Amino acid sequence: MAQTGSYRAGGRASRIAARTASVPEINPCPPGQIGGRYRPLTSAAVKDITDTALRILGEIGMGEVPKAFQTLAVSKGAFLNDQARLCFSRQMMEDIIDGAAKRFVYFGRDPKHDFEIGGERVYFGSGGAAVQTLDLDTGIYRPSTLRDLADFTRLADTLENVSWFTRCCVATDIPDNFDLDVNTAYALLRGTMKPVGTSFMHGKHVGPIVDMFDIALGGEGKFAERPFCQVHISPVISPLRYGEDAFDVTTACIKRRVPINAVVAAQSGATAPATLAGMLAQTTAETLAALALVNLYEPGYPVIFSNWPLVIDLRTGAFCGGGGEISILNAAAAQISNHLGLPSGVASSMADAKAVDAQMGAEKAMSAVATGLAGANMIYESSGMMASLLGASFEAFILDNEMLSHVHRMIRGIEVTEETLGFEAIRATVTGEGHFLGSSHTIDAMQRDYFYPSIADRNEPRTWAEIGAPQAWSAARKKAASILASHHPDYLSSKADRVIRERYNILM
Amino acid sequence: MAQTGSYRAGGRASRIAARTASVPEINPCPPGQIGGRYRPLTSAAVKDITDTALRILGEIGMGEVPKAFQTLAVSKGAFLNDQARLCFSRQMMEDIIDGAAKRFVYFGRDPKHDFEIGGERVYFGSGGAAVQTLDLDTGIYRPSTLRDLADFTRLADTLENVSWFTRCCVATDIPDNFDLDVNTAYALLRGTMKPVGTSFMHGKHVGPIVDMFDIALGGEGKFAERPFCQVHISPVISPLRYGEDAFDVTTACIKRRVPINAVVAAQSGATAPATLAGMLAQTTAETLAALALVNLYEPGYPVIFSNWPLVIDLRTGAFCGGGGEISILNAAAAQISNHLGLPSGVASSMADAKAVDAQMGAEKAMSAVATGLAGANMIYESSGMMASLLGASFEAFILDNEMLSHVHRMIRGIEVTEETLGFEAIRATVTGEGHFLGSSHTIDAMQRDYFYPSIADRNEPRTWAEIGAPQAWSAARKKAASILASHHPDYLSSKADRVIRERYNILM
Repeated sequence: MAQTGSYRAGGRASRIAARTASVPEINPCPPGQIGGRYRPLTSAAVKDITDTALRILGEIGMGEVPKAFQTLAVSKGAFLNDQARLCFSRQMMEDIIDGAAKRFVYFGRDPKHDFEIGGERVYFGSGGAAVQTLDLDTGIYRPSTLRDLADFTRLADTLENVSWFTRCCVATDIPDNFDLDVNTAYALLRGTMKPVGTSFMHGKHVGPIVDMFDIALGGEGKFAERPFCQVHISPVISPLRYGEDAFDVTTACIKRRVPINAVVAAQSGATAPATLAGMLAQTTAETLAALALVNLYEPGYPVIFSNWPLVIDLRTGAFCGGGGEISILNAAAAQISNHLGLPSGVASSMADAKAVDAQMGAEKAMSAVATGLAGANMIYESSGMMASLLGASFEAFILDNEMLSHVHRMIRGIEVTEETLGFEAIRATVTGEGHFLGSSHTIDAMQRDYFYPSIADRNEPRTWAEIGAPQAWSAARKKAASILASHHPDYLSSKADRVIRERYNILM
Repeated sequence: MAQTGSYRAGGRASRIAARTASVPEINPCPPGQIGGRYRPLTSAAVKDITDTALRILGEIGMGEVPKAFQTLAVSKGAFLNDQARLCFSRQMMEDIIDGAAKRFVYFGRDPKHDFEIGGERVYFGSGGAAVQTLDLDTGIYRPSTLRDLADFTRLADTLENVSWFTRCCVATDIPDNFDLDVNTAYALLRGTMKPVGTSFMHGKHVGPIVDMFDIALGGEGKFAERPFCQVHISPVISPLRYGEDAFDVTTACIKRRVPINAVVAAQSGATAPATLAGMLAQTTAETLAALALVNLYEPGYPVIFSNWPLVIDLRTGAFCGGGGEISILNAAAAQISNHLGLPSGVASSMADAKAVDAQMGAEKAMSAVATGLAGANMIYESSGMMASLLGASFEAFILDNEMLSHVHRMIRGIEVTEETLGFEAIRATVTGEGHFLGSSHTIDAMQRDYFYPSIADRNEPRTWAEIGAPQAWSAARKKAASILASHHPDYLSSKADRVIRERYNILM
């Protein structure tokens, strides 16, 4: 029967007014949605790939093994094959996986930014080490500077879908490696209270920089209590070798409780097979080898299992970040990592585009949708990255943030309950007013279930032309400039800042 | 052991030369890939939604039923409820679904364009009735003309991922309805041999236009043998009413063997519930009501079950084609239709963007990926549509075509076999040359498994700047203009053309 009482009084104009006033404050699709409805691989395929990965580790093994680690690994059951490569039996590797951290909290300096990594919850964040920045004024790339890094950090501080901020560019204006690592960390400290990530050029840089974090937090050992910065490191060099430098950084990070994002970033057809299945088998083996390295030192140490299968373009041999192959490869990598129960890290939205254009939009969205729906826990590189990771862009950060809301909305999916199926609401409408506009059932749902973009232009063509036929690039540039002009956070106390400046060569 | 014999001789330069010469002629991801790895709904959710849809048809039923159809339906077991609405019992509707066409061929006038609709094979094509066209020269929208339609048709004729061409715009320069339908059909005949689609303003237009198709094919009754044109029609008006005009067109189409694309295009929160589950329940019921209409006249008649759940923006009440909600709704609609075993039609890539910009790229890609991975058979509106379906764009056709290759590549997925897992290739490389570049195993895979875009810019930033910092819009404009300047197909014999021009008021 008709429930006319549930409809608001008034005509079309008042309905529109009511709706417009009702655009929700609540985000219907915050980060942390539960993915996994997209399964690029069949269960049998996941098994074949993981079996092959374990066989690779058991028979082909790892080369260039740091001496200290080899001694440790062999003492724990690993063995050298007839080519003196370090091998792990299936049983040993399964034990390592069993003992590895399955879920852990990624801390912000402000607890409101904390989130748990693991399961099939999906978070997007940044990554990258762009040596060039798309200049906001000229629209052309130029070398990235410390100032850019500071600007990117405070911009990302305002963007809801950048769940953590990994330094996205390299301050190429700092020649000294130690100063570079220190000032990178300092820029992160100043610009955001979100969880952050960085890299260390040498193992010996880790201690002093964690000391700096301790100063920022107000005392020795504070960082280890709530480690808010993860290290991005590649302990494995494809194909199937350990790296001595990364090994040093890894052990130094374990000592100072820096969570480890263990990245394997092999390139198909160059450092891994061009066949997609072979690529995944090798990179899964390699990421397991990185996991083994950390876990043999300390079982259960927080490690993100970052299997990022990358792609090259046959025509040039150069890395390309956009396209169908890299999208399904990273989605499949997430599926495999989640199957193993490990915190999954992948990469998305690495546009090859240089311009903030339609190519960029499509390249970024395709891989973000694929990896997000596949349930990757930590999706790196998803914000701001351009030019096949060579460049970073302020405008891209703005547009990615809005695109990622749509992706989170997709991951959230469709709730099916008696209430949402709405049989009675349909009956009431059909036999009553004849349309759903303006009913409280509708208004409630549209506030609760729909994301309303703020940058996207939804005007009709005539209105769009009248306001100057704007493009997304210009809208994003305006928004980025406005945020950079107004958002000047300083998350370091003046006391901590003074102490840091006394001890370190701070260049900003 | 090392298989160095399988590697081509020479250094890096010769390897690059070999690769560049080796860019494949074969499309690694043609239309018709098998989707379904993305399941937006759980099985339980699919059952709840279809159960609710059947309950809606059994209890709430359909209003405004054309007299002739009501008589027929009641004679076949339908009944009127206490509000005189036409209801179908669950058993009756299940019988109709059982008897409905599950797979049928969509014919081109050239058999090379034929393809089978059904299962989980995915094809993208056009749709729409844009009243405005994005002018190639001015970059602003203006009213669409017959000339535009002819141009879009011959452009689409060259685009591999437009598997069929539904007239994407309305020739607003033709005031007479009959002349409009005739000239629309004529433009399709002239410009492409692919399967096509159109609409008919009145049932009485169907006969003369199919006569014209017969003339084009060389004789009376030829169209019925290989019907190459489907009608886009909405026999149901949301919520839950039949439409008298569409009913007339539908019966006229059945008489002349025009395959029917039965489109339900309800808008969430306006003509259907705003809750996503309720929306799908109602639109599934409505599409089943449309299926019943055709199948009660002729069981097994070719019908595409086109459940296109559309979305409005709460702030304006206007339709919006981009975003997360519309992407998952259409993916879910495909999943439900495929579950019912019916040829599924949905819509994707309906950008709200007016400009050929980053917003367009992201909006189009998100929904194309979602619906494609979900396994929709016929994905309408996927090419060229802009401005929330108000506009069509030549440049968008070009860029969509390339984006859809990436999507087809994603749908194709990852083949896992002993060969593709490549254990021996990995062993040979690791213990041999140390990289995979240049091996025949690699070259073969990169030719077979990777899509190489032709419009996308994959240059490094400096090269990009040196060539003038181009954007995708300009690249696409150039390509569209070049095709339109050179591709002038005329797929009508001069004899047929003469006969048609004698009988019909052809305006081009």
